[in-house]
Order: sequence, then C-alpha cells, then structure tokens
Amino acid sequence: MNSTRRMVFKAAAVGVGLGAIGAASPVAAAPRPRGVRVAILLYDGFTALDAVGPYEVLCRVPGVSVVTVARKAGPVRTDTGMLGLVADRALHQVRQADVLLVPGAGNRGITTAMEDAETVDWVRRLHEHTTWTTSVCTGALLLGAAGLLRGVPATTYWASRTYLETTFGAVHAPGRFVESGKIITAAGVSAGIDMALHLAAKLAGDRTAQALQLAVEYDPQPPFDTGSPDKAGPDLQRLALRLIEDAAR
Amino acid sequence: MNSTRRMVFKAAAVGVGLGAIGAASPVAAAPRPRGVRVAILLYDGFTALDAVGPYEVLCRVPGVSVVTVARKAGPVRTDTGMLGLVADRALHQVRQADVLLVPGAGNRGITTAMEDAETVDWVRRLHEHTTWTTSVCTGALLLGAAGLLRGVPATTYWASRTYLETTFGAVHAPGRFVESGKIITAAGVSAGIDMALHLAAKLAGDRTAQALQLAVEYDPQPPFDTGSPDKAGPDLQRLALRLIEDAAR
Repeated sequence: MNSTRRMVFKAAAVGVGLGAIGAASPVAAAPRPRGVRVAILLYDGFTALDAVGPYEVLCRVPGVSVVTVARKAGPVRTDTGMLGLVADRALHQVRQADVLLVPGAGNRGITTAMEDAETVDWVRRLHEHTTWTTSVCTGALLLGAAGLLRGVPATTYWASRTYLETTFGAVHAPGRFVESGKIITAAGVSAGIDMALHLAAKLAGDRTAQALQLAVEYDPQPPFDTGSPDKAGPDLQRLALRLIEDAAR
Repeated sequence: MNSTRRMVFKAAAVGVGLGAIGAASPVAAAPRPRGVRVAILLYDGFTALDAVGPYEVLCRVPGVSVVTVARKAGPVRTDTGMLGLVADRALHQVRQADVLLVPGAGNRGITTAMEDAETVDWVRRLHEHTTWTTSVCTGALLLGAAGLLRGVPATTYWASRTYLETTFGAVHAPGRFVESGKIITAAGVSAGIDMALHLAAKLAGDRTAQALQLAVEYDPQPPFDTGSPDKAGPDLQRLALRLIEDAAR
C-alpha cells in the first residue's frame, strides 16, 4: 500500500486509535475458501438490487470471485429500463460455478426469461455441479422453470408465491430465505442481502459474515414497517404492484 | 396490457382474490411529482449497492426518472472491479437534476474522485439547483470536497466519520441518515435504502413510500446483529476493513 495515499477509513469508532487499516495490524486471518466462483445471471428486465445486494456481500468473502453472465456479454437493462449493468461473460463462456445466483424481475422480464430455453437450460446445467444454487425474488420462478423446485420448500417475491406453487410445484415456506439442500431461495429484492450474509457464513464462517455485515453497514432502520405483505395490508399491496407496473418499461 | 401475458404477480397474500395487478383495480392514485430527475453519479471504484439501493426505491416513485452519470458515458467498474454499471450520460450532458445522489467508494475510488476537479465541480454546480443533494457512505466526502458540508450535520461510512469532520469541517451526527436543509447524507452502503425510502416520502408522501418498501420487500432480517461499529466491536471493525481492503482491486 502506498503510504502517501490518503486513508479515509479508520477502525476508530471507540476513539482509541486502532490505526488505519493497511497498517500491519494483527487481524486474525479468516477461513479463506479457495477459488469460489459466484456466477450471477443477468437478463433483460432483471431487478438490479436482486443481483447487487448479494454481490456486495459475496464479493468480499475471502477467495470469492464474482462474475456476471448473460445470453450475450455486454450491457443488460433492468426492469425499469433506467439502469444497465454489464454482463462480463456470455452463458456459453461459463460452464461451471460454485455458487449460482438468479435474480428476479418484473412480469415482462421473468416471463421472457422463463420462456427462453437457452437461459433455462443454462440454469439447469450449472445447477448440476454447484455447491449452492440461489435465487432472489422471482428468480425462484426461473429455478422452477428449470425443474429444480418440484416438491422443494422455497420462497419468492411475496406476490408470486401462489404462482411458484401452482406452476412449478414448489412448496412455499415462510422466511426471509429458505434453505433446502443446496438450494437457497430468498424473498423479494432486498432479501438477497440477508441471504448473502447467511451464505457468506456458510462459505467462510460466522465471524467473516459478521464482519461483512459491518462492511456494508447493514444495520437496517427502515422509516416504515411495511416491508412484508402481512404488515402492509391489501391496499398497500395493490399500490406496490401498481407502482411496479407503472415503472416497468 | 396484453391479456395473454402471464401474470406472475398477485396481491393475494390474504387469499381473497384481490386480483392480478394490471386488471383495472381501483387503486387510489398516489401524489405524482411531475418530471423529477434523479442523477446518480458513478465513478471508477464506486460501491455498487450505494447507488443501486436508492435507485431501486426511487425509480418507482411516480414521475421520477433516474439517470446514471459519469465523467464518460459507458461502463464504470466498482471498487472490487468485479462488476460494471453503465453510466448513461457524461457529466457535461447533465447540467441539472432535482435529486443528486453521490455513492461512496473504497479508499482508492473516493480519493481519486475527491481529487478530480471535473467531478467535484460538477457536484458543486448541480447542488446549486437541486431540491435534494444526497450521499451514501463515503459519498459524503465528495460533498465535503465540493465544500458543501462545512459546519453541516452529516454522516458517512462508520470508518470515515473522523475524516469527514477533520478534513471537511462537517459535524458528524448520529443516525442512519442525516437531513440538514436540502442535504441528506446516509451512513454506509446499505443505509442508502433507508434514506431513499425517506426521500420517497418527501417526494410522493408516506403512503407511496410505504408501498415502495413493500415493492422491494424490505423487511430486513439480518442473520447477525453486527451492522454498526458499536454493535460489532473493535475486532470485527478491523476485520471488516481488512476484508474491504483485500477485495479492492
């Protein structure tokens, strides 16, 4: 590390000069999984936070590398069309991954993805050799379309639970995320952050996951308490879906 | 809406057939701010979730459009180098915005950005006509470098509080986010989601913000309780900064 570089980070909240990171402070090494490859699928109309929440946690697990993958390498637009993320690899370039993460999308994006044989086949093939196959939000429907959820306890976006059960034979289970064997499905959008911390603990131990929770300062204090359908009630449920539909391109 | 399109979303958690969204259900219209432009600054080495958390909430506020802006339009890589987001406009193409959002970065990214006159000047000029100027994480340091935080109560990433005060004369205030006049600064990374819900309420009313909290199913249930420096303690603080440093490219 360049000693002339400014140090804007300091572990000094307790005010006793713990020293800037980068100095040779004797932090015990965390367990370091070697060469764990995380593949995040992107597809037209996906929901950005579904992918980026888990990315932000998993990318800092020691030994982990994250790669974004789509039908074609290059920019992929989100459900609102207002944001693009870059897929660094095409599907055919990624034949194996230790962790597969499938984000969700709105109606248009997930429907198109579920009907795309190339995407669905890729999910199915990768799953054969993953250590963990994971989804966020309606990403579970894509796991369902790949035939991975028949009779499997799983979760998805709150408004898609019925669809997941009736269409793919999954068994909806409550929870912010649901672990069934090597498949972990998270609830909607922001739930991917909670799931990723859980997965980080599986990959590298609780202590590393706890440090990663601090690394992303995940001490949530939402200004309201309407983040689940039960807490929000039917009127806000309808308004939420209307807002999603109106913002969809 | 195409009636043959599959409807994977249903506001039916209470099981009484509220009907699929897209049907002409009489949801009361939310206040709709007209033509509110949100500009999200991207720069080499920024932290993805700082930008994407608020984007995911704000893009669905009725009447809001979000645009990503960087020195040069095109892909911008994050702090780990493992992810790219697309900046849709160059700085010189965006002269005004109603809401400016400045994400943070690790040491390298934020230091480089603070020292880049073009970026700092752009932040300062946009701020002159914004309704809200906001930051997430170390993005506050860039507001500081633009001279916007002298004597102003503000927050930033937990490990950068001292730097923010001593370098830019801000007054660190506790809180997940801090509103000082038209400047709202959020704490680290994931705090941008909380701030964005607050901002959504300012722009479109509490009810819309509450629905947006449900839209992103933000009912956080972190597996640990180590998301703030006080809760985590000094050892996890050091480990967190080590993990960030190790993952930085």
